[in-house]
Amino acid sequence: MTRRSPLNVPVWILATVLALHTACSGQQPGDQKAVTAAINDIFNRYSSSLNSGDIDRWMSLWADNGVQMPPNEPPVIGKDAIRARNKGVLDRFVFNMTITNDEVGVGGDWAFARGTYAATLSPKAGGAAVSIDGKYMTILARQPDGSWKIHRDMFNSNK
Amino acid sequence: MTRRSPLNVPVWILATVLALHTACSGQQPGDQKAVTAAINDIFNRYSSSLNSGDIDRWMSLWADNGVQMPPNEPPVIGKDAIRARNKGVLDRFVFNMTITNDEVGVGGDWAFARGTYAATLSPKAGGAAVSIDGKYMTILARQPDGSWKIHRDMFNSNK
Repeated sequence: MTRRSPLNVPVWILATVLALHTACSGQQPGDQKAVTAAINDIFNRYSSSLNSGDIDRWMSLWADNGVQMPPNEPPVIGKDAIRARNKGVLDRFVFNMTITNDEVGVGGDWAFARGTYAATLSPKAGGAAVSIDGKYMTILARQPDGSWKIHRDMFNSNK
Repeated sequence: MTRRSPLNVPVWILATVLALHTACSGQQPGDQKAVTAAINDIFNRYSSSLNSGDIDRWMSLWADNGVQMPPNEPPVIGKDAIRARNKGVLDRFVFNMTITNDEVGVGGDWAFARGTYAATLSPKAGGAAVSIDGKYMTILARQPDGSWKIHRDMFNSNK
């Protein structure tokens, strides 16, 4: 005999409705809050890993099929290319960067983030430091373990 | 007496499950295809409205709380500011632009798109035309009527 809920509806139907509703997580306020916290943490690690010159820790924030879209150069496609490009920058400069994440939008297993950054890049070979001031937009992908990784990352100058 | 489906489940329950499943549209292959077509059409209208100098038609592609993120200037926040900035550009230049949209990702009522553009901007006051070659990333929002509008739009140069 099928187990019935007080609504006289089989319990498995209620469970299915609930599961489908939970799968629509982009629309849930609770998910919005948790995802925003997780993504703000990614941007904290983004700047702290660059500031400590740690390419491995910075690369760990990226999804496997990531694409970086820096200004004034072609898109950088895939983790190998992203590592090579950004290791080259870290080899030449000491970073002092802060990131302010202004917003997070969540839709299912995708999220986008938008914000601003400021950084001073000091050449390791000596010479004047370069100050940059810009904005970014980032797409993040929810991973099978529930964590988030950077899928697309684009930035340009505010000046 | 409640109408029952062949599964001995009230019809309204099946309808609810179906509606919730449809609401999780970001995960459905059919939605991916339809949304990609709708968004490719938006980029066709994006370039054709700029090429015809039609600021009203171009503005109709934007959501009310849109943000444009052009290179080498601060973010342009809200439709009034976006209209003023881009009308200023269209007042000065005749556009000849093509957009190639490379990908669309869909998550619930959000989508992102990424691609490249090339344009020749001919000064109305005379003088040499300027060629630009860049990439973009755009967040689009599904509207209550099912159409899509531009929510965030960022671009920078490939050169």
